[in-house]
Amino acid sequence: MRRSVIGGAKRTTTTTCLFLLNHAHHRSLLPPLHHRLDSSSSSSSATALLLLLRRLSSSSSSASSPSPPNMPNPVSVQSINPKVLKCEYAVRGEIVILAQRLQEELKAKPGSLPFDEILYCNIGNPQSLGQLPITFFREVLALCDHPAILDKAEAQGLFSADSIKRAWQILDQIPGRATGAYSHSQGIKGLRDTIAAGIEARDGFPANPNDLFLTDGASPAVHMMMQLLIGSEKDGLLCPIPQYPLYSASIALHGGSLVPYYLDEETGWGLEVSELKKQLKEARSKGITVKALVVINPGNPTGQVLAEENQRAIVEFCKQEGLVLLADEVYQENVYVPEKKFHSFKKVARSMGYGDNDLCLVSFQSVSKGYHGECGKRGGYMEVTGFSPEVREQIYKLASVNLCSNISGQILASLVMSPPKVGDESYESYSAEKDGILKSLARRAKTLEDAFKSLEGITCNKAEGAMYLFPRIKLPEKAIKAAEAAKTAPDLFYCRRLLNATGVVVVPGSGFGQVPGTWHFRCTILPQEDKIPAIVSRLTAFHKSFMDEYRN
Amino acid sequence: MRRSVIGGAKRTTTTTCLFLLNHAHHRSLLPPLHHRLDSSSSSSSATALLLLLRRLSSSSSSASSPSPPNMPNPVSVQSINPKVLKCEYAVRGEIVILAQRLQEELKAKPGSLPFDEILYCNIGNPQSLGQLPITFFREVLALCDHPAILDKAEAQGLFSADSIKRAWQILDQIPGRATGAYSHSQGIKGLRDTIAAGIEARDGFPANPNDLFLTDGASPAVHMMMQLLIGSEKDGLLCPIPQYPLYSASIALHGGSLVPYYLDEETGWGLEVSELKKQLKEARSKGITVKALVVINPGNPTGQVLAEENQRAIVEFCKQEGLVLLADEVYQENVYVPEKKFHSFKKVARSMGYGDNDLCLVSFQSVSKGYHGECGKRGGYMEVTGFSPEVREQIYKLASVNLCSNISGQILASLVMSPPKVGDESYESYSAEKDGILKSLARRAKTLEDAFKSLEGITCNKAEGAMYLFPRIKLPEKAIKAAEAAKTAPDLFYCRRLLNATGVVVVPGSGFGQVPGTWHFRCTILPQEDKIPAIVSRLTAFHKSFMDEYRN
Repeated sequence: MRRSVIGGAKRTTTTTCLFLLNHAHHRSLLPPLHHRLDSSSSSSSATALLLLLRRLSSSSSSASSPSPPNMPNPVSVQSINPKVLKCEYAVRGEIVILAQRLQEELKAKPGSLPFDEILYCNIGNPQSLGQLPITFFREVLALCDHPAILDKAEAQGLFSADSIKRAWQILDQIPGRATGAYSHSQGIKGLRDTIAAGIEARDGFPANPNDLFLTDGASPAVHMMMQLLIGSEKDGLLCPIPQYPLYSASIALHGGSLVPYYLDEETGWGLEVSELKKQLKEARSKGITVKALVVINPGNPTGQVLAEENQRAIVEFCKQEGLVLLADEVYQENVYVPEKKFHSFKKVARSMGYGDNDLCLVSFQSVSKGYHGECGKRGGYMEVTGFSPEVREQIYKLASVNLCSNISGQILASLVMSPPKVGDESYESYSAEKDGILKSLARRAKTLEDAFKSLEGITCNKAEGAMYLFPRIKLPEKAIKAAEAAKTAPDLFYCRRLLNATGVVVVPGSGFGQVPGTWHFRCTILPQEDKIPAIVSRLTAFHKSFMDEYRN
Repeated sequence: MRRSVIGGAKRTTTTTCLFLLNHAHHRSLLPPLHHRLDSSSSSSSATALLLLLRRLSSSSSSASSPSPPNMPNPVSVQSINPKVLKCEYAVRGEIVILAQRLQEELKAKPGSLPFDEILYCNIGNPQSLGQLPITFFREVLALCDHPAILDKAEAQGLFSADSIKRAWQILDQIPGRATGAYSHSQGIKGLRDTIAAGIEARDGFPANPNDLFLTDGASPAVHMMMQLLIGSEKDGLLCPIPQYPLYSASIALHGGSLVPYYLDEETGWGLEVSELKKQLKEARSKGITVKALVVINPGNPTGQVLAEENQRAIVEFCKQEGLVLLADEVYQENVYVPEKKFHSFKKVARSMGYGDNDLCLVSFQSVSKGYHGECGKRGGYMEVTGFSPEVREQIYKLASVNLCSNISGQILASLVMSPPKVGDESYESYSAEKDGILKSLARRAKTLEDAFKSLEGITCNKAEGAMYLFPRIKLPEKAIKAAEAAKTAPDLFYCRRLLNATGVVVVPGSGFGQVPGTWHFRCTILPQEDKIPAIVSRLTAFHKSFMDEYRN
C-alpha cells in the first residue's frame, strides 16, 4: 500500500500532484493504538484501549451529568480541518512515539528491554544528547534575564567581563531595558542591527535590519512564508526530494501543492537545474502556479553542501522563471569538509549583480543548529529581500498577529551572528568550545558513514555538512514482503525493528521522500563520541541479524 | 465607507457573514504611504515614495543585471494568499505604525512634537511601560539559563536560596538538564506536572499534565485550535463583539466565519445566553456549522468578570448545542473588584458534574498577563479536555510541526502556576511585588475610568479585570462628517488626532468590533502611576479642544 502511494508510482508521474507524504498510509494502515497513545503518558496499550472503550460507552455512562440531552462529541476526526489530517511530520512521527513509550517502559521496568537507553538520532537536537551550550552565550542570556545582578560585585566572579559588557550593550538596545516586554513585531531593532552587521561581515554585501524578521526558530518563519504564498492547491512550491518534512507539512497545512524535484544520490545528492526545469514545466502544464523554489543548503536530510557555481545557476533559474527563492540556510556553520564552503544565496545573487529589485529571496537562519545547537531557545530569523513594499506590509502583518518572538531567542540570534572576537576575554574559551564541537561532529560523521558503508546492502554519501547521514538500504525481497504483510513501509519496518532491538531512533526515508523503490533512513551524527562505538556495534549486530533473517 | 462595512449595517443582518474587520476600509481608503512605511525604519514618506518609484521603474533600471529576461516580480499583492489580505490586527495596526514613526521623529528632532514621549496604551505590555519583573521568577530563569553557576559560592550572594533550590528542581525535571534541547512537543513533562498541580490547587478538581500543551504565549495556542477546527468558510466560531482581534485575525487567516455575539454595554458588557442562542440559530440558518464558542474572561477589551452563574449557563449552552468552549483565561490573575472572583470554566463545568467526556473545553493561559506581565518571554499553555483520542492525536501533530515552545517560557509558565509559598525565603518579597502591582493597577483603572467619565460625551464601564478600559465616545455629527471627508472611520479619526496631539496611543473600537453606530477606543491601564496625572490632563485638554472644534 505504501508503495502504491510513493514507492510504486513512476517517478515522472508523481511529481506535480499534491505530495501527501505518508498520510494515506498513516491514516489507514498503521496499528491504531500507537496513534491513540499519548506519547508522554505512562499509559500502556491497555489503558489506551480502556480510554477508547470508555469513550465508546460514554452515552450510557453519563449518569453523573445533570443534563438530559447528550449531544454527540462536537469534534470528530471527520469534522476537523482536512488539511490537518493530510499533514505528516515524520521526525516526530510514529517511530518517535514508540521510542517515548519504550523510554517509559525502561523507566518503569529497568532491564526489561535489550538496551538501557534510548538514543534519539531522529532529530537535530544536540543538547538532548549531551552537547554543552557555549558558555559565553549562556552568560549573556542569564544576565539579560536578571539584569538586577549586573551591578553587584559577586557578578564579576561568576561572569566573564565581556559577557557583562555585552549584556549592558544588549539592554541598552532594548527600549526601557525591558527584556520582559513584547518587542517590535520584527524583533528588537538594535538586535536586528547586530544581526545585519553579522550578515554583512559574512557576505561582504550590505544587509538591512529592516529586512530581518526575528522568529521562534526557523519553523515559524517557514510557515509565515507558506501562509503568504499559498492561496489554494493550485499554488505550488518546488521542494527537494528528499526534503525536511517541515516543508511538506507546512505546504499540506496551507493547502498548497508540493512540486518535488529529485536530488541525485549518485552524484552526492546533486541539485541539477535541468531537473528543476523539467519539474517546473511539468507542474505548469498541469495548471500549477509555481511560486517558489525551496533549497536546503547544507542539505537536510542529505548533508550535501552546494558548490557556488551550482548556486549561481539556481539563482539564474529563479530569476528567469520568476520564482521566490526560499533558502534554508540553518546549517550554515555546519560544514565538515575542507573542499566545501558555505555561501549564502544572498551573497551569490549579489555577486552576480542582482540587487534587491531583481530577485525575491528569503534566507532562514536558526539558533538551533550550528555549533551552538540551542534548539530549546527557539531563536531564528528570516532575511526578506526583493519583495514590493505592499507585500512586505503583508508579511509585517503576519508577524504582528503573533506580536513578537521570544526575547531570549532574539538575543541569542544576535549573539550567534556576533560571537566574541579576538581580544575579548571569552574569545579563547569560545573558540575552543566551538572548534571542539565542530571537529567532533566531523569525526562522528565520518565514523558513522564508514560504519554504514561497511554493512551489507548499505551505501551512504558523505555528510559534507548539516547533522545527518541518509544511508540507502537495499532491502531483501523477503524483508519487503514481510513489511507488506505487516502493512508497513519497508523502511519503517526496518527502523522499527532497529529501535526495538537497539534503542536507536532513526527516521525512515519515506518521511523525507525518496526515489520510488529506494529505501533510506536518516540518522543524526549527534550522539556524543563516547557513545559512538556502542551505537556502531549495535547497529552492525542488528543489521547482520536482520539481513540473516531476510536474505533472499 | 467604514459605516457601510460595519457601522452602517443593521446589527441583526451582519451577524453570520464573514466578519472582515476593517479590511475593506484599510485596503482601499487609508493613505497608502503609512502602509508602505516600514514601521521601524527611519524612512520618511519621501523615502517610501522613492522606493516605490524605484520599483515602478525597475524594468528600465536593471542595467546592472547580467541577465536579459526581466520576469515580473513573482509576488504581487494580487498573487498572495487572499486570506492574508483579509486579516487585520488593530492592536498593531495603523495607529501603532504612526506612533512608531512619531517616536523616530522625536528621536531625530527632540522638541519637534507637542509631547516628549509616546505612551503606548495600545497593547497589554506592562514591562514596556516600566513595570518591573517579579524578582523570584527572573532569578530562577537566569539560573536555568546558566546552570554552571549554581554550584559556585558567589551564587549564594546573588540569588535567593529558594530560587537556587527551584532551579535545581526544574533542571532535574528536564531530561539531561538540557535547557537548550527541544522538549517533548507538548512541553517538558515535569513542568506540565507542576502546572497541572497549580491548576488543581486553583480549581479543586484534577488536572492531567497530558492535557497541557505549552506554547509560545497564548496566541499560537489559539491559532492551533483555529487551524484544527476550521476547514472552510462554512465553519464558524461564535466570538464576542467587542473581541480581542487575535480571534478575528486568526479566523480570517484560516478562512472561517466569525459569528459575532454582542456583549451588552448597558449591563457592564454582560454576556447573555439568549444572545448566543439567537446568533447561533441565525448562523445555522445560513448554513454555517458553528464549531465553537470563544469566551474571554476577564474580558478583553471590555474588562468585565463573568459571574459564576453566568458561566454555568454558558457551559450548559455549549453542552446542549455541541460546541467546543474556547476559554481565553489569560487575565485570570487580573481582577480588581472585591465583589468579583475569577472561576475557570473547567472548575465551573466540573462543579456542574460534567466530566471529561461531556464537554470539549480548551483553556488558554499566558505568562504575558497577570501581575507578572512577562510578554517578551512568550510562555503559555492550553489545557485541552474532552476531545477524542483521535482528535487529540491531530492536536499533538500540529504541536509537533513546530517542535516545541521555548524552554524559558515553559519554565516561566510553571513558575507562574507555582509561585513561592509561605515559608519560602522569597515569599515576602514576592507577595509584596505582586500585591503592589495588582493594587496599583486597580488604582490606575479607577483613576482613568473616572477621568474618562468626567469628559463630555464619554461613558465608561468599570474595568473589573484584565488591563483595559473601553470607553464609548458619542462623537458630534460634525466630527463624523470630518472623518468621512478624511475617508477614515470616526473612532480612528479621533484616536489619530489624540496621538498626534498627546503621544497617547489607543486603539479605535472598530478594531475590536462594536455595535454599529457606536464608537469606542481601548486604553490600557498600564502606564506607571507617576505618568497617570499627565495622561489624564493631556487627554482632558485634547478631548475638550476636539469637542470645541466639532461640537454640533
